Amino acid sequence: MNISRHLKIRASGKYLPDKCILSSELEEKLGLPRGWSLKYSGVRERRHVEEESNADLAVGALKQALQRAQLNLGDIDLVINASATFDYILPFQAAFILESFPLKKHQSIAAMDINSSCLSFISALEVANSLLQNEQYQRIAIVSAEVSSKGLNPDDAECMTLFGDGAAAFILEKGSSSDIEVCKSGIKTYPEGFHYSIIKGGGNKYFFKDYTYDPLLHSFSMQGKKLLRLVKRKIPEFFDSFFKDESFGINDVDILIPHQASKAGLTIFQSLYPDFKGLVYSHLETHGNCISASIPMCFHEVLEKGMIQKEQHCLLSGTAAGLAIGGLLLKF
Amino acid sequence: MNISRHLKIRASGKYLPDKCILSSELEEKLGLPRGWSLKYSGVRERRHVEEESNADLAVGALKQALQRAQLNLGDIDLVINASATFDYILPFQAAFILESFPLKKHQSIAAMDINSSCLSFISALEVANSLLQNEQYQRIAIVSAEVSSKGLNPDDAECMTLFGDGAAAFILEKGSSSDIEVCKSGIKTYPEGFHYSIIKGGGNKYFFKDYTYDPLLHSFSMQGKKLLRLVKRKIPEFFDSFFKDESFGINDVDILIPHQASKAGLTIFQSLYPDFKGLVYSHLETHGNCISASIPMCFHEVLEKGMIQKEQHCLLSGTAAGLAIGGLLLKF
Repeated sequence: MNISRHLKIRASGKYLPDKCILSSELEEKLGLPRGWSLKYSGVRERRHVEEESNADLAVGALKQALQRAQLNLGDIDLVINASATFDYILPFQAAFILESFPLKKHQSIAAMDINSSCLSFISALEVANSLLQNEQYQRIAIVSAEVSSKGLNPDDAECMTLFGDGAAAFILEKGSSSDIEVCKSGIKTYPEGFHYSIIKGGGNKYFFKDYTYDPLLHSFSMQGKKLLRLVKRKIPEFFDSFFKDESFGINDVDILIPHQASKAGLTIFQSLYPDFKGLVYSHLETHGNCISASIPMCFHEVLEKGMIQKEQHCLLSGTAAGLAIGGLLLKF
Repeated sequence: MNISRHLKIRASGKYLPDKCILSSELEEKLGLPRGWSLKYSGVRERRHVEEESNADLAVGALKQALQRAQLNLGDIDLVINASATFDYILPFQAAFILESFPLKKHQSIAAMDINSSCLSFISALEVANSLLQNEQYQRIAIVSAEVSSKGLNPDDAECMTLFGDGAAAFILEKGSSSDIEVCKSGIKTYPEGFHYSIIKGGGNKYFFKDYTYDPLLHSFSMQGKKLLRLVKRKIPEFFDSFFKDESFGINDVDILIPHQASKAGLTIFQSLYPDFKGLVYSHLETHGNCISASIPMCFHEVLEKGMIQKEQHCLLSGTAAGLAIGGLLLKF
């Protein structure tokens, strides 16, 4: 079917909590040598919430995007929360974002959560584009807001130095031929890696009634080496399938915006694709891994800085707990 | 835009855990008069899991749907988990459903979670239909699987007698003109009702590190009267807007498949629309409220029983924690 796949980004926004945690502070606390975090995790500083909720971060990012678009919340038809962490088990987080927004009493907007862990923004962008093309909705806001800092094991140096908190929001409309073209999107799940990055406790499997709080059970845990080995094997398989029917391959991409998984994660791409000549954008050093908020925060920065030229191809891509690998290719 | 909105339901499936809890047992435990549950909650019996996970229920329903469609899991392009409860905080639940499926090693299917609490199936069906119409995917499975029983306060008679566990799965393809037509879908969120039905603890807001298990905090709690009052006010507003541009109204619907919220919730519809002549399907008495699984389980039963005739209109609709109200209108 001949469907226009042009998408208009009306505006985007970003929000970080105020509290900045320097790696040097963490290294002192954890008894690590000075410079360990930057060397191994790739992170010099990151933000952590103090009193703020996930929804507070989401509202911060969404407000900025709305201001820049000169719109009000009431001008949005659908709010998609595309995040892995949340404030309440029930109701869904998008409802709490609306509840946390000023002047909420007057709103009756459609809302839903979409979650594919670190790739939630890519899943949501795929869905939003489809709903806009079908004119099911006229204007959609996607918000990714992550509080990773609560779910970290304070004794786990690798995770403590890697993760940060933050949020980004995008306001989208169906575009015309002069707007961005969504060339391709796709996600694959490789469940053999399910247990390699996980928060075991807190759901129905290890229900909190039956398991009292234990940082080993209720924090994010990662089997880093096994995960990296699987990722290394699956990435070429994923991209081979992703670009199969396209007239060009990954080396023709101008700007890659990868999920800021870790220093090792970012290095894998470069080792697998040594001929890649495009720009690989990263803010890992100053933000850490902000789960699903990493890709849209980086995308927001790239747009802010005017780094993408007309006709250029931009690929949002990454890995996620699941294990999932995903990509979304845009032509500007 | 003139888009075909015809949808083919290849097959559906349903799965219930074995353990049946009679209301008479609960009434004895809770010191309630015999018959209280049926009278006030509308429930005579419901199923509760013993050892089963959310994913086990999901796999049970999905296996039945696949068998009936004479398909394998590998024939599915995208698995959407459309549920409110889950086994793990991270990764997302759809990945765990794939992990729990036999022969998982060979799969690399796209997967995501969609959550709008009790209306998750409606949100997922809206999204799946859009993705199929745009030929982004050829065949999508939606699975709603809920374990409500773990999140109940054992001293809360109203909730203990109301909720059940269960799952349903639908396999969908883009249809032709002889298939079902998706006439209309929509969800509205009214965040003023956010706190009326909630599980407070377990997310980042009341993080389990800071709040030890307390049935009052970590169970589902409902301000029933406030919720019903708000629902009563918002339902007419919702349906007025839903049917605004249609050539017919709610009284022209042949079969209503409502979320099995509660006896009082089902009564509201009848009191608001006394002229409604269509069939209102309910299995509340034998299943209880199974959160997001209620609507697709009822829909599956209605299809199984051949209750919908060609040319008839079927409306899936309900309320959800959020507060959200949603509907999806199908013409057979």
